[in-house]
Amino acid sequence: METLKIIKIGGNIIDDEKALLSFLSQFSELEGPKLLVHGGGKLATQMAQKMNIPVQMNDGRRITDEANLDIITMVYAGKINKNIIAQLQANNCNAIGFSGADGNTIVSEKRSSQPIDYGFAGDIKQVNTNTLELLLKNNITPVFCAITHDKNGQLLNTNADTIASELAIGFAKNYKTELYYCFEKNGVLEDISDENSVVKNINTKTYQTLIDDGIIADGMLPKLNNCFHAIHNNVAKVCIGKPSMLFSTNTIYTTIQK
Amino acid sequence: METLKIIKIGGNIIDDEKALLSFLSQFSELEGPKLLVHGGGKLATQMAQKMNIPVQMNDGRRITDEANLDIITMVYAGKINKNIIAQLQANNCNAIGFSGADGNTIVSEKRSSQPIDYGFAGDIKQVNTNTLELLLKNNITPVFCAITHDKNGQLLNTNADTIASELAIGFAKNYKTELYYCFEKNGVLEDISDENSVVKNINTKTYQTLIDDGIIADGMLPKLNNCFHAIHNNVAKVCIGKPSMLFSTNTIYTTIQK
Repeated sequence: METLKIIKIGGNIIDDEKALLSFLSQFSELEGPKLLVHGGGKLATQMAQKMNIPVQMNDGRRITDEANLDIITMVYAGKINKNIIAQLQANNCNAIGFSGADGNTIVSEKRSSQPIDYGFAGDIKQVNTNTLELLLKNNITPVFCAITHDKNGQLLNTNADTIASELAIGFAKNYKTELYYCFEKNGVLEDISDENSVVKNINTKTYQTLIDDGIIADGMLPKLNNCFHAIHNNVAKVCIGKPSMLFSTNTIYTTIQK
Repeated sequence: METLKIIKIGGNIIDDEKALLSFLSQFSELEGPKLLVHGGGKLATQMAQKMNIPVQMNDGRRITDEANLDIITMVYAGKINKNIIAQLQANNCNAIGFSGADGNTIVSEKRSSQPIDYGFAGDIKQVNTNTLELLLKNNITPVFCAITHDKNGQLLNTNADTIASELAIGFAKNYKTELYYCFEKNGVLEDISDENSVVKNINTKTYQTLIDDGIIADGMLPKLNNCFHAIHNNVAKVCIGKPSMLFSTNTIYTTIQK
């Protein structure tokens, strides 16, 4: 089977124009089929502030009322996604922007309002890769923003890490899928203040030890749960680290194994 | 050759939620390959006002500075395009949203700043239909917003009527293309105050007479120039009228002929 790289970038790249341009230039050079998933960064919150629309968060997750869904749709699917596409085209990487509504690629369910009402937040129910595979076979790179739909006309705000892992799982029947989570650190760190303390490999057994020892906590927990969910559903490889893990062989990062 | 319908809708539908939902439901039922192009309506101007960003117009055309380009990208490619896609999916019409940057489908050139500097406004140089044809053959409907790119990373605001006509011309080598401009009137009217005074057919010769008689003027002139440009470049049929011209056989509208 051919290898498909699914790469997720977050706010630390999206919010830094120079870092984004540099990343997109290197991403364009990557050989073989690839797919990009991007988060939203700080721009949506800044937009809401400019428009005097209150932003409510709970436990680091946005409560998406109708006004905030509009902003997210404008910022993620509009400004961020289309500027990424234009830059990739400038680098001769033929790309098409996607939300989960486009091509009916990702169908979600509005999250239950109990115990906490997150508003228009979607939990992924189904991934359809046929159209995406058709494009990949024609050397076209899909670029996903973190928006899905419920197939009844409703757009839904959806976690970008989860979109990346569910896409990787969806492609696993036809590709050897590799999932790369790019973030601001070198990987999972044994000592959060020491960028050199990267835990190079984590498996199901050592994962539990790292949780018990308090090394994996807070924001890293859902991220690693996504990784293990992917690894246990036929994704061949999951890595966490700085984007350089994709482009340079002497980068240290964390690899997740069964 | 197979017939491809290219349909452009403007502000009168986009700005009216009920009219838009009704249109999208009927559009979904249309048989055969089809492609939708949508304008932006009043939403971009309203957004600019909310954000205290000045909007400058010249002769009915927007002067697109950087702040307004951001707004247009957010509103056209984000909010409007993704909501249309979600609605089409709800109607079982498998659609994918496009700007001209996506798939490098429409390459434009930033308009000369002389005699009037329109800012980030693009004039179309090249249309690439390969990827779109691949999708059409797989029963997927492309939906274009009025944004293109210069292939050097710059997005450009581009007239939606022109996008529709240039796409129709681009497809004409492989399809019998029909171009439908939906707007708020029944067609070209002999008497602007009488919706029953539709000029049913206009050809190159009668066009000049209608201009000389002052029947075609102002906003209708660029619209009809687009129509004749298409008709003289192998587009099989160009029609102007209300959306019902697409769905009902007893609608009166204007047909443009050579």
